[in-house]
Amino acid sequence: MEVGLIFPFPLKRSYGGSQKGITYVPNGDSQNLFHTGDADLKTPLNLEFIAKDTVKAVERRDVIVIIDALRCCSTIVTALTNGAACVIPVITIPEARMLKKKNPGFITAGERKGIKPKGFTLGNSPLEFSSENVKGRVVILTTTSGTKAISLSKKGEWVLIGAFLNAKAVAEASLKIAEKEETGISLVLAGKEGQFSLEDFLCAGAIAEGFPAEKVELDDAVRAALLGFEGARRSLKKVIQQGSHAQYLEKKGFENDVEFCSKMNIFAVVPFLKEEKIVPLETSV
Amino acid sequence: MEVGLIFPFPLKRSYGGSQKGITYVPNGDSQNLFHTGDADLKTPLNLEFIAKDTVKAVERRDVIVIIDALRCCSTIVTALTNGAACVIPVITIPEARMLKKKNPGFITAGERKGIKPKGFTLGNSPLEFSSENVKGRVVILTTTSGTKAISLSKKGEWVLIGAFLNAKAVAEASLKIAEKEETGISLVLAGKEGQFSLEDFLCAGAIAEGFPAEKVELDDAVRAALLGFEGARRSLKKVIQQGSHAQYLEKKGFENDVEFCSKMNIFAVVPFLKEEKIVPLETSV
Repeated sequence: MEVGLIFPFPLKRSYGGSQKGITYVPNGDSQNLFHTGDADLKTPLNLEFIAKDTVKAVERRDVIVIIDALRCCSTIVTALTNGAACVIPVITIPEARMLKKKNPGFITAGERKGIKPKGFTLGNSPLEFSSENVKGRVVILTTTSGTKAISLSKKGEWVLIGAFLNAKAVAEASLKIAEKEETGISLVLAGKEGQFSLEDFLCAGAIAEGFPAEKVELDDAVRAALLGFEGARRSLKKVIQQGSHAQYLEKKGFENDVEFCSKMNIFAVVPFLKEEKIVPLETSV
Repeated sequence: MEVGLIFPFPLKRSYGGSQKGITYVPNGDSQNLFHTGDADLKTPLNLEFIAKDTVKAVERRDVIVIIDALRCCSTIVTALTNGAACVIPVITIPEARMLKKKNPGFITAGERKGIKPKGFTLGNSPLEFSSENVKGRVVILTTTSGTKAISLSKKGEWVLIGAFLNAKAVAEASLKIAEKEETGISLVLAGKEGQFSLEDFLCAGAIAEGFPAEKVELDDAVRAALLGFEGARRSLKKVIQQGSHAQYLEKKGFENDVEFCSKMNIFAVVPFLKEEKIVPLETSV
């Protein structure tokens, strides 16, 4: 007779996922994993440092929070706060143009090397996404890093968008979903051109702070981000400004964006990727 | 006529390395890189989060500091401080046994899953590497993560070993070498079984703090580690104990090792990989 072992702690990645409430039954030649629904187990909270590791979060079937504080995710948060109907993330500029051609009412927005592509309505500055500019409109968005990370997560069932602007809201929403779905949560740093970005790491720490300690089991990378945020919090804007991406943006004249994107918890919207469109979570589930 | 452009800032990785004082001469079909020796340029200080990215540091021709605070690098630092003639890092247990067979005077040391392999003289606890046990002896060391990371760096010209125990010393030594050689410096986190480890990240921050700010150009990852260390410093030991690796070691009964390895700057030795042996830097150059 097989004996089901209930682990007294959340299963780690080596067991094939970060779902909680899982029973591992050794049966000689394979591992059977199934849910027990044990509500006492904490939700695993993981962090991936670079965008390409979004796929690891997808494999774990985690609720995914894509973080690109400068500026893509801040832009999406602002657009939805100001009443955009939805944001459609696309990878390439031709893709954005084709979609616009088919749907003349849509707005094209985004950047390459920080600058608005030719013929686009808006750039990637969240400050452009005012109610006047976006209310009721569908926004097609293509950026160098953020929309690519979002695209890598498309196979994930629950993909949310996080920024300093909505840190607390996205933490609360992701935990609610993860508890209901009995999965873990992965914070994924979009970074800049596939590389690690300081501001996204700090933003992950800011978001992680929004989880009740007794409800989540932190991996080492989340602990590192929390400590980094702790070290930065007293002069957050100044620290973000020291990062390579902020320095790049400031050289291009986007210092107001850096300042705006450093504001914490000014918005309550939680953008959610649903059938390749990003919509506010509260109106979609 | 070609015009040599002297960059007013340290060259980034995309220019093929993190060497400083480099002149880039565009010549139509290839890039010529050569040193100008401009002493005003800062030394690039980089960080790699996981062991396999040691190869990136090697490609950049950086001075490499391998960090495995729990416990391999702390063990090496302690062994050399207590007079071991050298430490020979090897990847596998059979390799260690074969080397011992050929050299009966050598000491075998190391761990698998934290525990001393059968027949080995010592484990991987730095506390075992007392003067009585290692003075004048050659130590063959094989560990799960640390010696593998060291092995990946073998093609690097300058490979140093860093821990909390010798943080300041290894910072000073690596800067001295990098300035002389006109290269960058890479801190590489060995982690645990190829994964990110909290204590190595904090150790990188502790080491980074040992560099004079005016002499180094930090990448985003080093800034993150500095902030993490800043957030952790007031209760460093306690924070390290929260990491997954420390928790594992404490369960195995190695809580004294975790405490010892958390001590900062108690040793001045800088272990240096020279022809596949690790020796104290000061006696080797």
